[in-house]
Amino acid sequence: MLNLDFHPSGRHFLQIPGPSPVPDRILRAMSLPTIDHRGPEFGALGLELLAKLKQVFKTEGPVMVYPASGTGAWEAALSNTLSPGDRVLMFETGHFATLWHKMARRLQLEPEFIGLPGYEGWRRGVQADMIEARLREDSAHEIKAVCVVHNETSTGVTSDIAAVRRAIDAANHPALLLVDTISGLCSADYRHDEWGVDVTISGSQKGLMLPPGISFNALSDKAIAASRHNRMPKSFWAWDEILEANQNGYWPYTPSTNLLYGLNEALDMLLDEGLEHVFARHQRWAAGVRTAVQAWGLEVQCLDPDVYSPVLTGVVMPEGVDADVVRKIIYERFDLSLGMGLGKAKGKMFRIGHLGDCNDLTLIATLGGCEAGMKLAGVPLSGSGVTAGLEYFAEHALDER
Amino acid sequence: MLNLDFHPSGRHFLQIPGPSPVPDRILRAMSLPTIDHRGPEFGALGLELLAKLKQVFKTEGPVMVYPASGTGAWEAALSNTLSPGDRVLMFETGHFATLWHKMARRLQLEPEFIGLPGYEGWRRGVQADMIEARLREDSAHEIKAVCVVHNETSTGVTSDIAAVRRAIDAANHPALLLVDTISGLCSADYRHDEWGVDVTISGSQKGLMLPPGISFNALSDKAIAASRHNRMPKSFWAWDEILEANQNGYWPYTPSTNLLYGLNEALDMLLDEGLEHVFARHQRWAAGVRTAVQAWGLEVQCLDPDVYSPVLTGVVMPEGVDADVVRKIIYERFDLSLGMGLGKAKGKMFRIGHLGDCNDLTLIATLGGCEAGMKLAGVPLSGSGVTAGLEYFAEHALDER
Amino acid sequence: MLNLDFHPSGRHFLQIPGPSPVPDRILRAMSLPTIDHRGPEFGALGLELLAKLKQVFKTEGPVMVYPASGTGAWEAALSNTLSPGDRVLMFETGHFATLWHKMARRLQLEPEFIGLPGYEGWRRGVQADMIEARLREDSAHEIKAVCVVHNETSTGVTSDIAAVRRAIDAANHPALLLVDTISGLCSADYRHDEWGVDVTISGSQKGLMLPPGISFNALSDKAIAASRHNRMPKSFWAWDEILEANQNGYWPYTPSTNLLYGLNEALDMLLDEGLEHVFARHQRWAAGVRTAVQAWGLEVQCLDPDVYSPVLTGVVMPEGVDADVVRKIIYERFDLSLGMGLGKAKGKMFRIGHLGDCNDLTLIATLGGCEAGMKLAGVPLSGSGVTAGLEYFAEHALDER
Amino acid sequence: MLNLDFHPSGRHFLQIPGPSPVPDRILRAMSLPTIDHRGPEFGALGLELLAKLKQVFKTEGPVMVYPASGTGAWEAALSNTLSPGDRVLMFETGHFATLWHKMARRLQLEPEFIGLPGYEGWRRGVQADMIEARLREDSAHEIKAVCVVHNETSTGVTSDIAAVRRAIDAANHPALLLVDTISGLCSADYRHDEWGVDVTISGSQKGLMLPPGISFNALSDKAIAASRHNRMPKSFWAWDEILEANQNGYWPYTPSTNLLYGLNEALDMLLDEGLEHVFARHQRWAAGVRTAVQAWGLEVQCLDPDVYSPVLTGVVMPEGVDADVVRKIIYERFDLSLGMGLGKAKGKMFRIGHLGDCNDLTLIATLGGCEAGMKLAGVPLSGSGVTAGLEYFAEHALDER
Repeated sequence: MLNLDFHPSGRHFLQIPGPSPVPDRILRAMSLPTIDHRGPEFGALGLELLAKLKQVFKTEGPVMVYPASGTGAWEAALSNTLSPGDRVLMFETGHFATLWHKMARRLQLEPEFIGLPGYEGWRRGVQADMIEARLREDSAHEIKAVCVVHNETSTGVTSDIAAVRRAIDAANHPALLLVDTISGLCSADYRHDEWGVDVTISGSQKGLMLPPGISFNALSDKAIAASRHNRMPKSFWAWDEILEANQNGYWPYTPSTNLLYGLNEALDMLLDEGLEHVFARHQRWAAGVRTAVQAWGLEVQCLDPDVYSPVLTGVVMPEGVDADVVRKIIYERFDLSLGMGLGKAKGKMFRIGHLGDCNDLTLIATLGGCEAGMKLAGVPLSGSGVTAGLEYFAEHALDER
Repeated sequence: MLNLDFHPSGRHFLQIPGPSPVPDRILRAMSLPTIDHRGPEFGALGLELLAKLKQVFKTEGPVMVYPASGTGAWEAALSNTLSPGDRVLMFETGHFATLWHKMARRLQLEPEFIGLPGYEGWRRGVQADMIEARLREDSAHEIKAVCVVHNETSTGVTSDIAAVRRAIDAANHPALLLVDTISGLCSADYRHDEWGVDVTISGSQKGLMLPPGISFNALSDKAIAASRHNRMPKSFWAWDEILEANQNGYWPYTPSTNLLYGLNEALDMLLDEGLEHVFARHQRWAAGVRTAVQAWGLEVQCLDPDVYSPVLTGVVMPEGVDADVVRKIIYERFDLSLGMGLGKAKGKMFRIGHLGDCNDLTLIATLGGCEAGMKLAGVPLSGSGVTAGLEYFAEHALDER
Repeated sequence: MLNLDFHPSGRHFLQIPGPSPVPDRILRAMSLPTIDHRGPEFGALGLELLAKLKQVFKTEGPVMVYPASGTGAWEAALSNTLSPGDRVLMFETGHFATLWHKMARRLQLEPEFIGLPGYEGWRRGVQADMIEARLREDSAHEIKAVCVVHNETSTGVTSDIAAVRRAIDAANHPALLLVDTISGLCSADYRHDEWGVDVTISGSQKGLMLPPGISFNALSDKAIAASRHNRMPKSFWAWDEILEANQNGYWPYTPSTNLLYGLNEALDMLLDEGLEHVFARHQRWAAGVRTAVQAWGLEVQCLDPDVYSPVLTGVVMPEGVDADVVRKIIYERFDLSLGMGLGKAKGKMFRIGHLGDCNDLTLIATLGGCEAGMKLAGVPLSGSGVTAGLEYFAEHALDER
Repeated sequence: MLNLDFHPSGRHFLQIPGPSPVPDRILRAMSLPTIDHRGPEFGALGLELLAKLKQVFKTEGPVMVYPASGTGAWEAALSNTLSPGDRVLMFETGHFATLWHKMARRLQLEPEFIGLPGYEGWRRGVQADMIEARLREDSAHEIKAVCVVHNETSTGVTSDIAAVRRAIDAANHPALLLVDTISGLCSADYRHDEWGVDVTISGSQKGLMLPPGISFNALSDKAIAASRHNRMPKSFWAWDEILEANQNGYWPYTPSTNLLYGLNEALDMLLDEGLEHVFARHQRWAAGVRTAVQAWGLEVQCLDPDVYSPVLTGVVMPEGVDADVVRKIIYERFDLSLGMGLGKAKGKMFRIGHLGDCNDLTLIATLGGCEAGMKLAGVPLSGSGVTAGLEYFAEHALDER
């Protein structure tokens, strides 16, 4: 029997920026018996799910559900709309933008990677003016798509997608807009239709509070039109057969039945609470956590208050402190998992996730573990973050529904 | 479908002094399919369980398992050893001792209730010298049993049972010693045989980390002998048929099969960890919580450091503060349940449970919720308990196994 | 980790007449986190539960819920209404009536046990005329209560309780009527108020489809009045404090919280289906099983078609066949648990439970296992019961709701 | 809350040829809390899993685990070893071979699809001599891979893979051998190394008894070598990064953590039982089911006894009977799901799955439901399949371990 109980007692605190802690209600839904994915009840479930999904993406268009984790949905977005050799403009917001760029190259696209320079470049969001400028240069419209990350999980920056849309429009450029909100959906406000996004990529294990394993593409008509003529070899990711089978609530191949049960439950929980309340809840958590970081006398990774992430907060260590050593102490002594610094941020910072099945006291516990662990590691702190965070939560009640 | 999710997100903090938070591992064990309680596998399970139970009671004698909650085990202890009209000496340590005394009267016994006077009397444990004095007076040996509570759940006082044994022996008195350790077993050190206890009463929903529903009597030979001649009408609680059926791992009537699965799992968890480690873990938690109370400038309910409970801590409110109002604010704002003041302590204090499926950060969260709630309620505090508790835990590592 | 998987693959068939197979939906409800049994949500749950319970007992009066298995509810019924030395008339329908009689003696009552003679006496139900005759003799009204078993789990006979009521009335006798429907409730039609029952005893692990651990007393006003003056020493079982605490949805001592979650779910399932549909479902199953027994050329234990049990069917083995040997083969070869013959029926028959989380194919599997096992054991059969049962189910559709 | 309880009582019988019924033990393992997929415990779990997987594929080489359902693993096998325009020889065993062929075309390969003609061609397995003949013609070695399905889920035919290997060798042809055993692994004997397979494709929701969502590629050195030079655009499926990350038990992107818990449990169950015992268990079930089909006077879909599938059995309906009408009656009346006829077999037959969490009585129930449903649908039957199957199981005990 699998044993994941490394400490003698109590529940592990999983405060990485996803996979997020899964509510027991969702785990219970996932334990329902697997049914025939070609039977009538499955079709009814499928139709219900697909309708609810549109609400969380804020779209009238179709949403593809892949029985594959989020990285697959990146590939799906690229491979359905682009052909080998196509030029793509991508913006470097952090590690995940970098990985997506790498994927584009492996798919034989010609990605152009722009961004602010160095590690400091990872502390601000997408610069829409840079995108606009580059698109204006591209008078031949060789760039087929602009790819940006909405909520950059490696940094805690939530970029302004509407601004990117305006930039493309200002440049009068026909490129598709592809947006990754794998870690933003259902935690940060997101509006596929209003923002004119062509393909939105998301996944299950963040704001949807599911285990990893399913992922999404929300599609505009323009994206669907592009998919009809592209030449990328693909089958599993191809939208055409999924769109057809989805008409009746089915999928062309075996879906992740039990994860779909969990998805249905998650969508009910989120829609019953109300998306605006969900977003306000995360914003408040993020503000409380930033208050703590400030009390410690440390820097938040994101330097631009307009694009602070409601999903996670990067905590920058003072010069000379190895953030991974701090994380290890916190993990071993307090059974608390935090996100590591990735790529250019490696060793420089750690990330606190404030998403999924959390509440004020979960985050107080998390801040407590961080504070005690940093002290044990010898990090100089200017004050108590846990009491500052606690005061913030006490003074800022979330309006009850 | 039952909905117990009162807050939009996150797990409720159940920090009452029992029922304690149940580890998922135990919930999973309890979800195994119910089997035939007369079949061969059940007998094997029963024998295994009964052997492990002896270890946690630290006894060589038999342990009765009732498919009934803890109050039933009180009645079982009294009704198997005593007859209507029998005189019993009971010590008033708090609310649960008072309820047990009330039960003795309803069972037509003649209980004599001694103790220190008033509410202050509830802030210290059993006074063995008072018991000795009373027994010495009883030269006719009319007193048939001495009944004391080991860990008084209403106050957070863990009395010295060995001292009571010495008192009885010093008085050279033949009375039986009946001890309630419903909330002490598997959290506080307990030694049925070494301390010469005749009947130990316990339950499932405290240190054993199970839901409520099963309870125990551990028996000495002297208690069994007494049961052979007593005249209390009884059947369900009667030891004789249970002792007989237990020989083969069965019970004379339908046992709580699924709770027994959970009990088996709990015993494995506790014995694998090692009882001494379990006790040290609770002692450390209690010390951390008391450090917090001290930092707040408040009083711990228990005034005698020798008998601080490792299981729960009573926090006394300043004069004029209604502890139940404070508890309500903490519950509503922070989704945290604390124990109320009971009986003479009603409204004067609240109780923090530090038992069951907890860890350092769970308790930091709990202290955080208490601190913020007390401030919101206008309770004057002299400092931050949550940072004091955090420091205590950081500075006092539990030796790893 | 507990391992109950004795066979390499597949789910055990638990077809004993209780504990019955528990629906996963109930197991999921039972895995919700334990809450504070003194908190506001618990009170709301308690009130809801108590209201729904009245519906299944078909009573306007109160229903006691004990955190104890069914045998405890027998003791509760006797100890609240009777005093040591009281005379009670009990009818021997089978093994459980016999055990209840034994309990009455242990409680220092003076039970009189009447019935039809011998093992054959266990093949018919309560004979109301015998009760009437005995009560008519008792002109001094020394008999304080008549105790009968509604659904005798050891035989598969469901006695006519209305006839017993008429018999008592015809004799113009003031005795209380105490009825055990531990295994009848929610499978066989039962009407506490209409039939003038004073105390109905039931349990969780049969028609309510829960694991064992909670039990019930439904009370008439006359029973409550009797409880105010009786002299049996009791506390745990005493109705007075429960009646008082139940006003607000609480209990005087720790209830079985997680089993109550399951109870709430079970009541929703049964009431949503409709009790009459539930009863029809069980009657149809029983008819199908009896058709199989007939096809085998064997006898059903119950000889009176008017009182065939809808809950279980006793299958009598031919002379010279040890039913327990047959059961063992069936268990070992087919992973199927059947009820053993108890008391006077020991070795003579086995019992097939058709209750709880079952359906037509579960019972076809059960009949298949019985048929193959009996053949392997050398029991001469005159035909195929499994095909006869299958035809019965095919030809008699249960009207869909 | 999701409600999948379409019938008032009892557990649905899911006897399609996958997804198979999931053992509760696996569902319990899957409900463990999600952990950090970059943390140390995850790495240990990953290494353990990867080692056990080799055992079930009977290979010394690496096994890729995709967080994607089985169709994805088909694409992974093709896209890592082949380049657009490559010629591939595929054998038409049934519907799934046909779908794989279609995928190859969508991936811009040049598949050649050979096989026996018509619907009758789907009633026998792979004809190794046809493959050998075709390869001999290909003196230029334009054919880069031979693709065959081991256990064809649409027909119930388990082809002889060793014979295909011998055919390739006899032709002295360098083509890779790609084998789909999505529904064969862990039910039918399979030997990746011994049979000289280059890529084996499998999935979670069949013999591994998991819900759908993860899938596999087992690799030969030759396959890995081919992957280093192929030109198919790919990223998610690419072996190179997975091979590297797997060295330490990790994956290059987010794995399906909770399904991996289930996989670990499934592997323990299967390896503890012993693979040979597992195979014998399925062979025996299949033989019992075929005995039933014979008793009904119907034909098994597979006409060649050497390649009967141990996993599922296709039951061919008489001329003029619509198999889907029969299936619908069985589903609605008996809560039993069977597999539909697919592609050329549509309406002609239904499929009984005998895999996953089953046992003899589950299959007796299944045969019972089929028999009664066929009678209700007016299918003429020559005898009772359920009694024939029962006799088979009774007479052929599976040797106990």
